[in-house]
Amino acid sequence: MLLCDIGNSSANFLDDNKYFTLNIEQFLEFKSEQKIYYINVNERLKNYLSTQNHFINLEPYFAFDTIYQGLGVDRIAACYTISDGVVVDAGSAITVDLVSNFIHLGGFILPGIANYKKIYAHISPRLKSEFNTQISFDAFPQKTSDALSYAVFKGIYLLIKDVAKNEKLYFTGGDGQFLANFFDNAIYDKLLIFRGMKKLISENPRILKF
Amino acid sequence: MLLCDIGNSSANFLDDNKYFTLNIEQFLEFKSEQKIYYINVNERLKNYLSTQNHFINLEPYFAFDTIYQGLGVDRIAACYTISDGVVVDAGSAITVDLVSNFIHLGGFILPGIANYKKIYAHISPRLKSEFNTQISFDAFPQKTSDALSYAVFKGIYLLIKDVAKNEKLYFTGGDGQFLANFFDNAIYDKLLIFRGMKKLISENPRILKF
Repeated sequence: MLLCDIGNSSANFLDDNKYFTLNIEQFLEFKSEQKIYYINVNERLKNYLSTQNHFINLEPYFAFDTIYQGLGVDRIAACYTISDGVVVDAGSAITVDLVSNFIHLGGFILPGIANYKKIYAHISPRLKSEFNTQISFDAFPQKTSDALSYAVFKGIYLLIKDVAKNEKLYFTGGDGQFLANFFDNAIYDKLLIFRGMKKLISENPRILKF
Repeated sequence: MLLCDIGNSSANFLDDNKYFTLNIEQFLEFKSEQKIYYINVNERLKNYLSTQNHFINLEPYFAFDTIYQGLGVDRIAACYTISDGVVVDAGSAITVDLVSNFIHLGGFILPGIANYKKIYAHISPRLKSEFNTQISFDAFPQKTSDALSYAVFKGIYLLIKDVAKNEKLYFTGGDGQFLANFFDNAIYDKLLIFRGMKKLISENPRILKF
């Protein structure tokens, strides 16, 4: 089975147990003999995907309990895997969602780490800097690269800690492993979104007949 | 006395007690018969300013106790006004500096609120949104504009609260008044940086003879 999770900057595939990523340009060139069961949050690709017969959109099949208006299907798929806890998907944006007894209680969205770096460089050439991934949260920064890293990483940490309290934390996405390291008892699962897609299909086997 | 605080996007003036702002283009057209006592963090203007006889750079006269490498002179001027507390300058970037017994203990730098908005729009058209300035920090967001506003405003709040503990909080800059409202006992002072410049000149009256 070929699964695909399409975002704003890339498309992630799971071909049985083989994981690979294409950028959007490569994705548009990608040819497959198999059916591709996908979710997509990239507005620019919506029309294209709807014209492709071998692409099957999983989004309509998710029955997920939320009052959040316009919750992205990638966030739904990731939350769909858990009964209770906080799901953090750290990619070009960082989404943080709280689930309790299979009900989505809400969520928030931070810029992704690479996009923080971009915006600092845009504000001033003096703020164009690599982040210090070893930054301490207990010492006040004494130079620009630490001042930026502390603000970004500790800001993300404090927001997640505040919402998580004693809930389990599930991280996914390109920066998920890095952010998971800030927390005790955090779980990093690169394939969290695909697990949600697989769970959906196993609950609705008729999808495989389309 | 004409004072000027030059940043990356604008130059703020204090003409005796009259405050006004010019954008950088307007600033370059600005003519004055008076001497202009200035501080500047805009790299692109450094050479220009050094060739202008009526512009007097105050930066060399600040004697400020810090081990921070490359602390911007606007941050120095703002911190120069207090003996103890936290100084937040919320403009195109948000700088947060901790001062104890006239000694600078360090600081950090967040993107300014308008720049958060820009970066969200850059990440995805779905994240192009106005912020909700009335957002509650106690309810989980249920739509995109709240999800962004909560992340930005509560993230800034938690970082400042974490460093401030029971210290006094001094806010300045274009978004200073708005952010000060999140805290009890915060002081908003639009002219904080100019107060630092005035204090410096009163301590070094020979500057006025240049």
